[in-house]
Amino acid sequence: MALKDLKGYSVPFSPKGTAQIVGGLPWNFGVDILAVHYRTDPDQIRKLLPEPLELSKEEPDVAYVWFGDWQGLWSGHDGMLGVNPERTQYTECLIGVRCSHDGVEGQRVVYIWVDKDFSLTRGWFMGFPKKIGTVHMGTRNRHLHALNPAMQACGPGSRYAAICESHGERLVTAAIDVKQKITPDKLPKPFGTDLFHTLHFPSADVERHDKPLLHQLVQTVSSDLKFGEIWEGEGDLTYHASAFEEHTALKPKEIIGAYIIPVGFQIRGTRLLHEYD
Amino acid sequence: MALKDLKGYSVPFSPKGTAQIVGGLPWNFGVDILAVHYRTDPDQIRKLLPEPLELSKEEPDVAYVWFGDWQGLWSGHDGMLGVNPERTQYTECLIGVRCSHDGVEGQRVVYIWVDKDFSLTRGWFMGFPKKIGTVHMGTRNRHLHALNPAMQACGPGSRYAAICESHGERLVTAAIDVKQKITPDKLPKPFGTDLFHTLHFPSADVERHDKPLLHQLVQTVSSDLKFGEIWEGEGDLTYHASAFEEHTALKPKEIIGAYIIPVGFQIRGTRLLHEYD
Amino acid sequence: MALKDLKGYSVPFSPKGTAQIVGGLPWNFGVDILAVHYRTDPDQIRKLLPEPLELSKEEPDVAYVWFGDWQGLWSGHDGMLGVNPERTQYTECLIGVRCSHDGVEGQRVVYIWVDKDFSLTRGWFMGFPKKIGTVHMGTRNRHLHALNPAMQACGPGSRYAAICESHGERLVTAAIDVKQKITPDKLPKPFGTDLFHTLHFPSADVERHDKPLLHQLVQTVSSDLKFGEIWEGEGDLTYHASAFEEHTALKPKEIIGAYIIPVGFQIRGTRLLHEYD
Amino acid sequence: MALKDLKGYSVPFSPKGTAQIVGGLPWNFGVDILAVHYRTDPDQIRKLLPEPLELSKEEPDVAYVWFGDWQGLWSGHDGMLGVNPERTQYTECLIGVRCSHDGVEGQRVVYIWVDKDFSLTRGWFMGFPKKIGTVHMGTRNRHLHALNPAMQACGPGSRYAAICESHGERLVTAAIDVKQKITPDKLPKPFGTDLFHTLHFPSADVERHDKPLLHQLVQTVSSDLKFGEIWEGEGDLTYHASAFEEHTALKPKEIIGAYIIPVGFQIRGTRLLHEYD
Repeated sequence: MALKDLKGYSVPFSPKGTAQIVGGLPWNFGVDILAVHYRTDPDQIRKLLPEPLELSKEEPDVAYVWFGDWQGLWSGHDGMLGVNPERTQYTECLIGVRCSHDGVEGQRVVYIWVDKDFSLTRGWFMGFPKKIGTVHMGTRNRHLHALNPAMQACGPGSRYAAICESHGERLVTAAIDVKQKITPDKLPKPFGTDLFHTLHFPSADVERHDKPLLHQLVQTVSSDLKFGEIWEGEGDLTYHASAFEEHTALKPKEIIGAYIIPVGFQIRGTRLLHEYD
Repeated sequence: MALKDLKGYSVPFSPKGTAQIVGGLPWNFGVDILAVHYRTDPDQIRKLLPEPLELSKEEPDVAYVWFGDWQGLWSGHDGMLGVNPERTQYTECLIGVRCSHDGVEGQRVVYIWVDKDFSLTRGWFMGFPKKIGTVHMGTRNRHLHALNPAMQACGPGSRYAAICESHGERLVTAAIDVKQKITPDKLPKPFGTDLFHTLHFPSADVERHDKPLLHQLVQTVSSDLKFGEIWEGEGDLTYHASAFEEHTALKPKEIIGAYIIPVGFQIRGTRLLHEYD
Repeated sequence: MALKDLKGYSVPFSPKGTAQIVGGLPWNFGVDILAVHYRTDPDQIRKLLPEPLELSKEEPDVAYVWFGDWQGLWSGHDGMLGVNPERTQYTECLIGVRCSHDGVEGQRVVYIWVDKDFSLTRGWFMGFPKKIGTVHMGTRNRHLHALNPAMQACGPGSRYAAICESHGERLVTAAIDVKQKITPDKLPKPFGTDLFHTLHFPSADVERHDKPLLHQLVQTVSSDLKFGEIWEGEGDLTYHASAFEEHTALKPKEIIGAYIIPVGFQIRGTRLLHEYD
Repeated sequence: MALKDLKGYSVPFSPKGTAQIVGGLPWNFGVDILAVHYRTDPDQIRKLLPEPLELSKEEPDVAYVWFGDWQGLWSGHDGMLGVNPERTQYTECLIGVRCSHDGVEGQRVVYIWVDKDFSLTRGWFMGFPKKIGTVHMGTRNRHLHALNPAMQACGPGSRYAAICESHGERLVTAAIDVKQKITPDKLPKPFGTDLFHTLHFPSADVERHDKPLLHQLVQTVSSDLKFGEIWEGEGDLTYHASAFEEHTALKPKEIIGAYIIPVGFQIRGTRLLHEYD
């Protein structure tokens, strides 16, 4: 059949185009983030920045962990909360670092785990190097805390942990002790800076599988940023040893701050920065 | 060693008492419910009411499904959101029916699935006949909806689905089309009526395993009821055929209403109503 | 309705009796075990033995971990492999200790994790203090190893690991380096000795929830033991620290041996040894 | 840093190269397959064959479902069964069709679900359009069946089911009634024919996301095929309706046969057949 008769932004292609793992742009998100920002060894950050990326000129030693309780929609899927919310909701734990590209300050997610296939592959299409993991966050549905006789409304005195596990190993444990509400402009960089990510599809060609079929440096383009009620607090962060993961090389030397950030935005796509040959 | 030196409200007992699957009373809860109330064949309800329970005198044909996004704490565990939220949060789908006991109107949960072990066993200690299942609800973290550019704040026009799967079978699909806020007093019965449940522990004794070791009818005792913002709407409900489950016998004949109910309360325990011999 | 019209060995009771979480005796099993036997501090074993159980007179310091890939059937369920194998197969990790009762040498499982609800509750009915966990074993489907070009048939040179995770924490890592086939009579005690377990159902009664509704010491009665091909080897065993579990108190001081044991048997029930008051 | 200092066949790249989701070629596999071959509407097969693929000239109406219990190793990972078997074992359900390319008879997997991230992405690198799903197979560890007092050794009279679930929906139920052993040469086509798959990586570029960044037709290159004991039997197959998946369009009209096939092989890579522009 003609190629155009097979529908899908992504595979599997199908006659109606509803079997695909994830649909096309734009992608609209709402997320509840539990973030811990910290300082680490900049030499370890440098080891994760392929050329032409460089260390941040402003704060070469700043990294962060974000736990996220996400709700995402792809194009044509806007009513999904009313059909099967499982295809909308996912959880995530990511480790990012400050960096710079061509003199522009930005950030790069270097390790990231999510619990759903559509998020893993959509992430890959934007250059997030996602793997599957399990995430639990104490901030979920926190409108319930004021109703539970043994909890308290989110505010000073609240403590929320978040954990990430993958392949049977605990990888990350974080926590925030909530202190005060802040406005979005008080969020420290790299919030608001550009995301510099790598699109990569390796080759399995029998004759030349040492060279990837796709290898680009891209920047994420987003819009419609809208914040909910943001809380600032003190943070804890532990990276646990793993047989596979190398995140412990980025272990914290000093905690900068911790934040609860409900935020929504649209991802409009990526912009090519550099093509590796 | 002396029995008293082994600690635990429930097994496994251990020297410090922290290995137990679930700790003791009181149990404090906050839950976000997506409820659909409906009418079904009262003969099918009757088949699920062991003596001395009887059909409701007021509405013998009323049943309901509740999907719940729960946060529960056991005694000595109050800071758990700050340690490991996975031991606090769980999801649930239950099917309940109106009934009466000794002239008192009440309700009984006849089928129920949860996604965590501590909830399964704590439920058994109160007479909820829980099995493990997977639940997804569109109402989760709905403070994010107003932030997502392709969603809307919860209100008229919002539609939320909920699904339940167990042993590889879809069991229940429900949905609410949100219409308006209501006050708690507008929630229809059996809200606010007593829960009549069965404590049951079968015997595996080689010589007399036809008679259970424990078989009681109990009533749940709760307090500290506190509601959040309640929404009323129109409901959809489908029970899917299963190789094992018998819930389709309770399939809906008429939908009464659908509700989103954030609520907190304390369970103080159970009260013995009847001992089966 | 009359109680007898509600069917089920266990809850949930239902008109046809197929909704129950697990059916009645006898229970027939086949299991592939990866076992590591070891010595630990007998004082720590003593802390897990409620009266009238005592330390083993023969080897007071012997404990073991068993990883198991199980296939179990309950009565009336014998064709389940042909209907839904998910209701038959489960995985397990248990930690057991040698002990004695009234002069008879035996064993007791003190901590145990499984991945299915029917196994959790059936275990409780026999006194296994089960919780839900995730288990992976390198011995699974090992008839495939000789076919995989990068593996070898099970035998000298084979190394198989097994891991157990629960609530986002790695709890146990074990491994066997396979050395030689052995006959069943070469398996060391406590293989073949009695199992001494505790039936326990706590009370949630509002007025007296400090005293369990059921508390007995029982012995498991089994028959029809049949072994497959048994391998002996050298073992590794690590217990990982946990926020909840107390198994690290039983950490190994010396590894005795490791075994791969395919075995089938029937559990005919339990026999009452002692009733706690 | 220099690009070459960041290691990994696939992302995430890391200093040591052990964080990657899956490592490089060759890939060595052992798998236990439960296959059902059947006839369906060839017009529905045609709708899944992008040019230059065509319907099979020999049997344009033949499709198949394969359930697989896999053990796979990537390069540098050969001892993984002794480290963390979770990174080796996975389960899969796939639906394939016969087809032809340039006069050569072959096959194409059109829908496929697996339970692990490394398998999903390795599959994508070869053109398998994988999504995440849950699979259970009655054939697992069948060396145990002869030991279980209520089962029988695999052979005439054995019946094994297999199920696949994804996003809370049952998608496929299959079963085999075992009849007799056969030799590999008795396996019907498309066994032994070429695999024709699509490599596809969509573009998220803000300016031209309608054209994929990568779109090729490739053929899989494998070697070292080695069979275990193969069983033939009669098959059952049901495709269940889904809110998303379109596999029901390929529903069976006639069952050809069912097979249990333990087999190992090496995948050496892919060969480019056609580049879409």
